[in-house]
Amino acid sequence: MDAKERIEHVLHKSIDRATSSACPPKLAEALQYAVFPGGARVRPKLCLAVACANGDVDPEISNAACAAIEILHCASLVHDDMPCFDDADTRRGKPSVHVKYGEQLALLTGDALIVHAFETVALAINQAHAQGRQPHRLTQLLITLGKSVGAPSGISAGQAWECESKADITTYHQAKTGSLFTAATKCGAIASGVDPEPWISLGQYIGEAYQIADDILDVTMPSESVLGKPVNQDSKIDCPNIVLQCGLENSITRLKELIAQATISVPNCPGRDWLRDLIIEEANQFIPSDEQVSEGEYKKQRLSTFDDTVDVRGMVA
Amino acid sequence: MDAKERIEHVLHKSIDRATSSACPPKLAEALQYAVFPGGARVRPKLCLAVACANGDVDPEISNAACAAIEILHCASLVHDDMPCFDDADTRRGKPSVHVKYGEQLALLTGDALIVHAFETVALAINQAHAQGRQPHRLTQLLITLGKSVGAPSGISAGQAWECESKADITTYHQAKTGSLFTAATKCGAIASGVDPEPWISLGQYIGEAYQIADDILDVTMPSESVLGKPVNQDSKIDCPNIVLQCGLENSITRLKELIAQATISVPNCPGRDWLRDLIIEEANQFIPSDEQVSEGEYKKQRLSTFDDTVDVRGMVA
Repeated sequence: MDAKERIEHVLHKSIDRATSSACPPKLAEALQYAVFPGGARVRPKLCLAVACANGDVDPEISNAACAAIEILHCASLVHDDMPCFDDADTRRGKPSVHVKYGEQLALLTGDALIVHAFETVALAINQAHAQGRQPHRLTQLLITLGKSVGAPSGISAGQAWECESKADITTYHQAKTGSLFTAATKCGAIASGVDPEPWISLGQYIGEAYQIADDILDVTMPSESVLGKPVNQDSKIDCPNIVLQCGLENSITRLKELIAQATISVPNCPGRDWLRDLIIEEANQFIPSDEQVSEGEYKKQRLSTFDDTVDVRGMVA
Repeated sequence: MDAKERIEHVLHKSIDRATSSACPPKLAEALQYAVFPGGARVRPKLCLAVACANGDVDPEISNAACAAIEILHCASLVHDDMPCFDDADTRRGKPSVHVKYGEQLALLTGDALIVHAFETVALAINQAHAQGRQPHRLTQLLITLGKSVGAPSGISAGQAWECESKADITTYHQAKTGSLFTAATKCGAIASGVDPEPWISLGQYIGEAYQIADDILDVTMPSESVLGKPVNQDSKIDCPNIVLQCGLENSITRLKELIAQATISVPNCPGRDWLRDLIIEEANQFIPSDEQVSEGEYKKQRLSTFDDTVDVRGMVA
């Protein structure tokens, strides 16, 4: 089973538990809808890659960590798409959860997914304890996940910076996007029983690279039907976008730098070379083609209404 | 320190961690606002009482369990009050979170509280493990909490039954209200290192009694300023209410029966008599006075627009 298949398998196994026959049918349907089919599954892939680079010594724990990370990500998307936030009608090429099932079920779907992520890891740890495996370090998984999505500096905090009149853009991106990438590398390390601290930098570099790649896609993609979610959203909702601020070529240069830094930052481990190659292979998919660059430059000029001296949705770079 | 002081202390300690200086200021304020000042703190009191009746052998774990249960309850109130659900303007005698801070922050406050509840317990377990205490059973705390608030049959599922065209009212109440009471007694037992299964009935009886007491208050309380949240809400939003269905006297009789059953159900433990007395003392506060009964009968007649043959917000008793 390759990484993609393995991640889909563990996600199905986890979500099927939440949507058993006891579950209200519409909530069960919305939970499945929010997680399947997925996007690129970048975060769980990263978590699993780190676990595998360290020998993947406890696959059940790695599986639970991957599932929890992706489920938390899906929860954040469901709530972020809601009318009181980005009011996005599409996600992953289909109507967003609140459009399909209504706001009540979208709210509950996000809540239930957050809970389910923690429950999934707790069940795996409980089983590991019952079998006498690594009793101590495993609760760090839950603490790491909690920090990455809650307050004071996880995803919820990241989104809450959007409600402030001023915010530091690095703090904002680190909380809203970076925190779950850092959690992915840390959890991969913890799951394989190694010290998570040296793995933080990798998560940070990839998180920042992913943010830039996402900004580039927002500006360069020709239409919603190609991207699978609304395009030019950052411009519409006044969200900071590096392409609109620094230009497309500079953004691509920065993206390439970050990928290089990410590969260099991989700590010494049995699968170091394999992991470096994998990072380059995966990252290359996010670097725009020459065609996208020229189209993107044209679109960028049309979209760019940004003024560096003015707050952007309350953000100051 | 009495139980009430202890609960407030552990809640402050827990929430202060989420609202440290790194937290976006408005989110920090909203998180504090959602938890303080509290209501009756019935659920953490119950959890702590069960832990104490069993010797309270690991106070840090009991504290974390109490805090998590109340924080999860507060999260459910914040989301339940939002415009897409009950659209309640007041809670605990003050504007509800979305009225005070807006829908975005209300959504994020609920999310961050859910995460924080799990993080609080995970931190306590991690510390206990580090000190070599009860490594196995403690993860059951997290699993129990997860089941009580997620899908398929926790609070999120309970609320999701409101989105179905038909639902069993017992299943609905058990998920929406009963599940966290059952979690309270189970977690109290787990925190003190005893088998949680015999403690489930106590949680169920008290949960059902509390639901009836809440229904009685909704109908009998003269005004929002006295109750601290909107009165006659069940009638307004077509939510099932036992007083409107069975009458006030029958409801009070049922409430008294449940309190008696709860006291009888207390399993054999060192503090059995103390716990029974405590249940009676606490429960008596929820039995309406003669004055409330006569006023309530009058209001009930005015409010009663229910027809037993028609679904009530999609519910069939």
